[in-house]
Amino acid sequence: MRHVISVLVENEFGVLSRISGLFSGRGFNIESLCVAETLDPDVSKMTIVTRGSDEIVEQITKQLRKLITVIKVTDFTGTDYIDRELILVKVKANDDTRSEVLSITDIFRAKVVDVSPTAYTIELTGDQNKISAILELFKPIGVVEIVSSGTIAIARSDKSAKK
Amino acid sequence: MRHVISVLVENEFGVLSRISGLFSGRGFNIESLCVAETLDPDVSKMTIVTRGSDEIVEQITKQLRKLITVIKVTDFTGTDYIDRELILVKVKANDDTRSEVLSITDIFRAKVVDVSPTAYTIELTGDQNKISAILELFKPIGVVEIVSSGTIAIARSDKSAKK
Repeated sequence: MRHVISVLVENEFGVLSRISGLFSGRGFNIESLCVAETLDPDVSKMTIVTRGSDEIVEQITKQLRKLITVIKVTDFTGTDYIDRELILVKVKANDDTRSEVLSITDIFRAKVVDVSPTAYTIELTGDQNKISAILELFKPIGVVEIVSSGTIAIARSDKSAKK
Repeated sequence: MRHVISVLVENEFGVLSRISGLFSGRGFNIESLCVAETLDPDVSKMTIVTRGSDEIVEQITKQLRKLITVIKVTDFTGTDYIDRELILVKVKANDDTRSEVLSITDIFRAKVVDVSPTAYTIELTGDQNKISAILELFKPIGVVEIVSSGTIAIARSDKSAKK
């Protein structure tokens, strides 16, 4: 099962290597990981995506909570959350394919961010399904290069009208 | 100096912890890091942002190239590249501030992805300057939560007309 885990950590040397070591030590592959500073430059937020049994992921989150540099751990599994991923993808574009690349880009509300005589670079944000769908369409045209941010996630707000 | 480094790696247990260890071992803080699978599920691409002297960053990239799981290392510093970051930011929104939040969102071509009686969640993609600018405007209104992907980068295409 896919788990999206958010970890708030103090910015200290080696915290990333310690946390990723917890996963690899248990033979767990990290599908994607993002870490970046928050508004407080002493604190960073990580989003980790992994696949595995609920029991083992629970063990890992327990271990994470024990690390003194870890402030908060949230496993989004089973909760109501929004996840997004950002990709930059360079697609072959010649006289035959250019209009097709542009029309796919339009349909997905993606954005052309760079143009050359032989390629377009496209920026797209979406959930995993949307990203996979556009890549499936670009693949037969020719994907030259791709870079992905991996998944980030945030809890949905409480919809009840408390003020 | 800010360095944006892209590392193509084979997906093996512990590769992330080994690479982040190279940075922390030299007392180098990682400002942001993204790692996600490429079209080839056996290969992942990392984008690492760090600040430090060119000499030390060069030493680190040399060390990275020596790791057998590392396929390719690119330091974008001084080259022509596109960098982007994705954020999800939850901003307080009440009757007094709601229209201001929406107009800022419009100006930055950002997107409201979730609404509650007390908050809007906004999705925005851009370079570091654009992200900082919108956050400066949201801060006085009240930022409840923020999650960032960190920077990803891709080389600009050669603009010369080779076919």
